[in-house]
Amino acid sequence: MIKNYASLLNKVRELKPLVHHITNYVTVNDCANITLEIGASPVMADAIGEVADIANIAGALVINIGTLNENTIPSMIAAGKAANAKGIPVVFDPVGAGASKLRNDTALKITNEIKISVLRGNISEIRFIAGLRSQTKGVDASENDMNETDSNGQTAKDLANKLGCVVVISGAVDIISDGKKIAFIKNGHPMLGNQTGTGCMCSSLIGSFCGAAPNEIFAAAIAAMLCMGIAGEIAFKKAGKSGNGSFRTALHDAINLMDARTIEKMAKYNEK
Amino acid sequence: MIKNYASLLNKVRELKPLVHHITNYVTVNDCANITLEIGASPVMADAIGEVADIANIAGALVINIGTLNENTIPSMIAAGKAANAKGIPVVFDPVGAGASKLRNDTALKITNEIKISVLRGNISEIRFIAGLRSQTKGVDASENDMNETDSNGQTAKDLANKLGCVVVISGAVDIISDGKKIAFIKNGHPMLGNQTGTGCMCSSLIGSFCGAAPNEIFAAAIAAMLCMGIAGEIAFKKAGKSGNGSFRTALHDAINLMDARTIEKMAKYNEK
Amino acid sequence: MIKNYASLLNKVRELKPLVHHITNYVTVNDCANITLEIGASPVMADAIGEVADIANIAGALVINIGTLNENTIPSMIAAGKAANAKGIPVVFDPVGAGASKLRNDTALKITNEIKISVLRGNISEIRFIAGLRSQTKGVDASENDMNETDSNGQTAKDLANKLGCVVVISGAVDIISDGKKIAFIKNGHPMLGNQTGTGCMCSSLIGSFCGAAPNEIFAAAIAAMLCMGIAGEIAFKKAGKSGNGSFRTALHDAINLMDARTIEKMAKYNEK
Repeated sequence: MIKNYASLLNKVRELKPLVHHITNYVTVNDCANITLEIGASPVMADAIGEVADIANIAGALVINIGTLNENTIPSMIAAGKAANAKGIPVVFDPVGAGASKLRNDTALKITNEIKISVLRGNISEIRFIAGLRSQTKGVDASENDMNETDSNGQTAKDLANKLGCVVVISGAVDIISDGKKIAFIKNGHPMLGNQTGTGCMCSSLIGSFCGAAPNEIFAAAIAAMLCMGIAGEIAFKKAGKSGNGSFRTALHDAINLMDARTIEKMAKYNEK
Repeated sequence: MIKNYASLLNKVRELKPLVHHITNYVTVNDCANITLEIGASPVMADAIGEVADIANIAGALVINIGTLNENTIPSMIAAGKAANAKGIPVVFDPVGAGASKLRNDTALKITNEIKISVLRGNISEIRFIAGLRSQTKGVDASENDMNETDSNGQTAKDLANKLGCVVVISGAVDIISDGKKIAFIKNGHPMLGNQTGTGCMCSSLIGSFCGAAPNEIFAAAIAAMLCMGIAGEIAFKKAGKSGNGSFRTALHDAINLMDARTIEKMAKYNEK
Repeated sequence: MIKNYASLLNKVRELKPLVHHITNYVTVNDCANITLEIGASPVMADAIGEVADIANIAGALVINIGTLNENTIPSMIAAGKAANAKGIPVVFDPVGAGASKLRNDTALKITNEIKISVLRGNISEIRFIAGLRSQTKGVDASENDMNETDSNGQTAKDLANKLGCVVVISGAVDIISDGKKIAFIKNGHPMLGNQTGTGCMCSSLIGSFCGAAPNEIFAAAIAAMLCMGIAGEIAFKKAGKSGNGSFRTALHDAINLMDARTIEKMAKYNEK
């Protein structure tokens, strides 16, 4: 099972899918670099005049509302519709959903109007999308937001069924559900949470894997999250004690040098 | 005295204030990372439709005009007014004031319409705001702009009194005044000036400290500038000879690993 | 000959030209840092209300369409016209030309309405501008796009004559022509292509050299490309095996520590 997930990395590197991002200007550089490091090809384009053209040459679309505005919201919808029409996977990262009416309205507009393949967020964001009580603190998860129904995977599973997509909740344990199965990944390191953009980078990795394996979306999401969690462990071991800057460099190194065998060997994975 | 300033770092890490930034897209990633490294939580949001909402959940607001435009200027004003109404500190970084009419007009509009808690800039920017002759060269300070009235702190003190805020002039010696006292920090290293975003990062640090200590703005600004100066020295010692890239990584490491004892031990500080 | 090119680096560090960028938000931080590292001073400004003012205090203008939009396209034209009126060099980087109608139209609008000093792109982008068949894949070059006429320099030479500017094609071998001579640079390392922004950074370096040597545009473009290729080799030797993150840090280090003697010693250069 892990072997199958891990082998998708080879597919990413062989097919080098073009991953169209409409994303925020805070972490966009990290997203572009991690997309290259995993073996895919990033293109960042958010002008309403070109998003449909770009979605049409892409293998996957990542929509991230981290720094949404009145110009980029229509671009997200237009790109999403072009991606749906072409049949390529759409990954949605509802950064900060719950923190402002604009983010809330936009997140709901996107889940209503676009067929999403993978929704990825922290527990506060996912609970907001699921219509549950959420105490998001800006763009970081509120520690109070995780309850038992969340941690046993029911929230992810229910939302996956409701939206007809794969749902990924990032956290100390990553939870992934396609509405039937629930996967738990215990890889990672707390330093990932002390680094801007690790959530956004997960979404870019998911987009890269989905672009390479559009018919195995659940497996693609799992493979992507395994890569990030394992890379976090490798980076901590190599550089964590030096601090945040060194950890970040080592994280990019680890994604770049990741291979299927390392994933198989280090995965702390179970599913039900 | 230094002990009191240094201890504010513990307060930042305990309270983890949310720091709302409306900032430029050049150095925004460094600003987000340094905010996390010092122990606060960054949220970058500049859409007119959400800035008031975000300011309302934040502990401090940082306005930075590094890449201002016709969309973000009204957002700066709206966020500033929301912050003022809520009573949270506002840090203003007038990047490149003096370099274009748009920057000049905007800087004056912000200082006129918003109650600023801390104004931080290089000598060219501060002299422009103070209505003195200024030869700014883009976003970097002109070396000709520092005269004796500036270096003895009178310019900062006068402007602090005029605007009713704390004024910070970054440079080889950082000068900070609340209109009564004048503080001088001799920490730092010239490599900080050869790195994009070190000024912007100072403003993010000031926002983080002000968010944690909104009733001690003068002390918060001093503590933030001590952190950056000392981190610059640590980074130079660790990696300076390797070059700019390594220095940058080490700078983030040093902020991440900074503690009150290091500040007390390394501070080169005096006030009058 | 190489000695003359290499010595331009000293000129950049002596004159510290201000390089105005209208560029994309993906790689803008790397562009600002590399401009500082080579010894120039970056200013990023794209608001229509200030681009003419900024171009007027600058020594060179770099226009990069990596994340163009309806707001920034008029700014590019306005800044280009102000730069032409003042007589400072304009470097144009047509990122992703060929990938969308908006990019195609904009690239042609810029080459029609602005007097360009240096056009720099990958082979797919340059072939698009030259009106030749091009299979660009997002923002990365298509490997199928390089044919014999390209690799012997004829495409660059013809386009240089057509546009009356210096043309730089970045790739495994960099090709540079002023319409008479053709230069070939065999420095560099494949890891440069696995890093976002190395193309954009080349354009920033070209802008920096052109700002210091506006009457030697061909030599300036060559010197800039030598710096990047050689820095790539140094970075690979120092950190390449550690992965992409470490390589990136080492690349910035190498540009920062570059000197004329290193260029002379390491250049793999010939011209015809």
